[in-house]
Amino acid sequence: MFDRDRQRPTLHQVVFESDTRIGRAFDLVIQSLIIVSLVSFSIETLPDLSPQTRRLLRYVEVGTVAIFTVEYVLRVIAARNKWGFIFSFFGIVDLVAIAPFYLATGLDLRAIRIFRLFRLFRAFKLFRYGRAIARAKATFHTVRDEIVLYVLASLFLIYLAAVGIYYFENRAQPDAFSDVFSSLWWAIVTLTTVGYGDVYPITLGGRLFTTVVLFIGLGVVAVPAGLVASALSRVLEAERRPEDH
Amino acid sequence: MFDRDRQRPTLHQVVFESDTRIGRAFDLVIQSLIIVSLVSFSIETLPDLSPQTRRLLRYVEVGTVAIFTVEYVLRVIAARNKWGFIFSFFGIVDLVAIAPFYLATGLDLRAIRIFRLFRLFRAFKLFRYGRAIARAKATFHTVRDEIVLYVLASLFLIYLAAVGIYYFENRAQPDAFSDVFSSLWWAIVTLTTVGYGDVYPITLGGRLFTTVVLFIGLGVVAVPAGLVASALSRVLEAERRPEDH
Amino acid sequence: MFDRDRQRPTLHQVVFESDTRIGRAFDLVIQSLIIVSLVSFSIETLPDLSPQTRRLLRYVEVGTVAIFTVEYVLRVIAARNKWGFIFSFFGIVDLVAIAPFYLATGLDLRAIRIFRLFRLFRAFKLFRYGRAIARAKATFHTVRDEIVLYVLASLFLIYLAAVGIYYFENRAQPDAFSDVFSSLWWAIVTLTTVGYGDVYPITLGGRLFTTVVLFIGLGVVAVPAGLVASALSRVLEAERRPEDH
Amino acid sequence: MFDRDRQRPTLHQVVFESDTRIGRAFDLVIQSLIIVSLVSFSIETLPDLSPQTRRLLRYVEVGTVAIFTVEYVLRVIAARNKWGFIFSFFGIVDLVAIAPFYLATGLDLRAIRIFRLFRLFRAFKLFRYGRAIARAKATFHTVRDEIVLYVLASLFLIYLAAVGIYYFENRAQPDAFSDVFSSLWWAIVTLTTVGYGDVYPITLGGRLFTTVVLFIGLGVVAVPAGLVASALSRVLEAERRPEDH
Repeated sequence: MFDRDRQRPTLHQVVFESDTRIGRAFDLVIQSLIIVSLVSFSIETLPDLSPQTRRLLRYVEVGTVAIFTVEYVLRVIAARNKWGFIFSFFGIVDLVAIAPFYLATGLDLRAIRIFRLFRLFRAFKLFRYGRAIARAKATFHTVRDEIVLYVLASLFLIYLAAVGIYYFENRAQPDAFSDVFSSLWWAIVTLTTVGYGDVYPITLGGRLFTTVVLFIGLGVVAVPAGLVASALSRVLEAERRPEDH
Repeated sequence: MFDRDRQRPTLHQVVFESDTRIGRAFDLVIQSLIIVSLVSFSIETLPDLSPQTRRLLRYVEVGTVAIFTVEYVLRVIAARNKWGFIFSFFGIVDLVAIAPFYLATGLDLRAIRIFRLFRLFRAFKLFRYGRAIARAKATFHTVRDEIVLYVLASLFLIYLAAVGIYYFENRAQPDAFSDVFSSLWWAIVTLTTVGYGDVYPITLGGRLFTTVVLFIGLGVVAVPAGLVASALSRVLEAERRPEDH
Repeated sequence: MFDRDRQRPTLHQVVFESDTRIGRAFDLVIQSLIIVSLVSFSIETLPDLSPQTRRLLRYVEVGTVAIFTVEYVLRVIAARNKWGFIFSFFGIVDLVAIAPFYLATGLDLRAIRIFRLFRLFRAFKLFRYGRAIARAKATFHTVRDEIVLYVLASLFLIYLAAVGIYYFENRAQPDAFSDVFSSLWWAIVTLTTVGYGDVYPITLGGRLFTTVVLFIGLGVVAVPAGLVASALSRVLEAERRPEDH
Repeated sequence: MFDRDRQRPTLHQVVFESDTRIGRAFDLVIQSLIIVSLVSFSIETLPDLSPQTRRLLRYVEVGTVAIFTVEYVLRVIAARNKWGFIFSFFGIVDLVAIAPFYLATGLDLRAIRIFRLFRLFRAFKLFRYGRAIARAKATFHTVRDEIVLYVLASLFLIYLAAVGIYYFENRAQPDAFSDVFSSLWWAIVTLTTVGYGDVYPITLGGRLFTTVVLFIGLGVVAVPAGLVASALSRVLEAERRPEDH
């Protein structure tokens, strides 16, 4: 209510909060740099890059890591509970996002590239705030047991489908359905309805079996997503009409 | 209540409303012409058209644009707030739908063809009326935050999947998974379950990774549609039982 | 309450109702014969059938049509409102299911085969009874407006997607994306997530466009099914708790 | 309430219940052995296994079957109603999971392999407990009629689609759409949106027909999964707010 009260924002407000103008600006700058760093990382994977481009990408790398390092130090300084921040989810993510740069310098290039995967976790920071995440968490908590059950049932069905199709197709297609493990790949691609078309049954028995598996499987594999949607809709409703609950 | 009151309809009733007989007829004629114009546009793209067909299509083009121009002028004349109409969504769409015809005559053919894309927006007019659109808007408003969150989470997952599959498949399939950008195409085609079959993992690691990504991804990518459906169902319910809300 | 009251069932009870023992038996026999007739029809399409098999299939055809003809005559006789039955949905379906057999004898074989398609409508009889159909109808009535809107929006999106991909892919793949009509096929196969893999974009622009179209499209095309499911769930709930409504 | 009451657990508590420490341990050991046995079974299908591996897999087989046999005997001894357990679902599953090992020793290897399929049912034991299963059953009970109706409608649609596409595509693709049975395979793969790409229409008529079938079919085939999700969400809600029901 008393906006006039506002004075020079504290470091904590700038670094950890987003309700002052400078705090929002800080967040936007950091988030933009994360995206710049991710785009730069993606470009690095392109084959046949010119030496100039490689040099430019290296500058972007050094620059963004420098800024993220300063940001990390500021967060540790500003945190009310320093060790609490360092061992919190985002404290660890922030550190892991910059550590490979310093740690990998002595190693060969290939190793560095694999370490850089962790940099992606910076993107989690983009989702740090918001009531929508709280709702997503509440929803997930509500339906967790069901999701575990339907995922287990899906895994069971996928394994059963893989063993079944192995017996139907192995003799007709000894390469595509060479063992239960390659049949598992078929079962996953089929029951998720992705259907690449790299493996599919050609025998009458295999096709009848696939039909039965699909009719049962679609009613199991598709349930978790529908359940999350339905439960989320209830959570949204409950928030809008608090007097009913 | 006083239907007897009805006299000769005003221009506004004819052009903007559909509760008089002539107003409905006007709408139907315009909407039919939009469809004629779209069909004609589609036929134009067919290769090896005879000169006679091309001439016929040109006549359809000139005819429909002429009628849409008259319609636009009538709408401006009939509008109670002329500038309000001109800068409204449909005012702009109506103008953009006819402008290319007049503007493009001096330019080369290729440019004209690209401008003609805007003609498609005429189809929006078909959806101008109806309570169903109001409900769709209300529903979208209700779940907007969640949709943004799940779309962001989907984008994050797609990027993570692309980087992961790049590391698993790049060496085995240097053409299909040449860089993170072609891996992104794979991730989008897979997580939407379209699964064209132009790119798919062949290594054991890549297939295991795909399985994990699909199990997590399907529960994220499919949520927005289910949420819209569920929320829409609530909005419909609320409309039918207004005393409860 | 007074089961003892039951006497010899009337023709109407046998033919049109299923709450007497003989009425149920009549239904079961007819429904089994419909399935026999459909299986026989499917076998007829197999290439390289032996003359004996052809003769057997012909006997099944003549036999089932004879029984369905007797059934039709019995229904007309038993119907309380004869013309009402003849022009009811199932009256017409019953007649159309047998008429081709009598009408087609003078024509060539090809024509007969096409007429036989109508025989399939006999299967509708299998779904004649049940409260579940009443619920399905009530549900459909509830969401009809929304389904029309989302189907229209889907058609609009599909057309927009087809025109867009035509501009992106036509030059790179002049055969696959030769015109807006073949692009429409791509748009339908993609937005329904069937993804056969017969046509898919290969240009960077086309792939980016596909991504955007899929993100918007999946949230439109998948809504009607979810809406039917959600509304059906409400109808079921309302039936179980009638005091609330 | 009286935890102190607990004394040495009875055999029934160890074998059939999981609320004592030793009962939980027993369950975990058995469940782990089932998974070991399934993994071992999958590895057996790999071509080109070394003799040493084959011998190791045989030891795993003998060992797990021995333990499962002891477990089965203990269950029969501990069961309060012995014949009730033996003829219960899990009693039969437990026996069928071990019987092939003893019965098949006199037969040839191929027969044994097919019998081993039943071993998979051991995995059902993993899902023996939990309220989530009770909810899944209650949900299924609620929507059983609708699922039967929509599955029947799906089967009807699939058959209709197969016959239709046969007439459109048979002449253009006499191999892919050779008869109604191969067309049925196309219909199943298409309406479940798997879309392998092994068969797809190429004629204009076939493509238009596919479009219509998909628009109707997706709104039927996808309903059961959505309905289960929606009803499950209601069951969860009802459990949390018992005073409302």
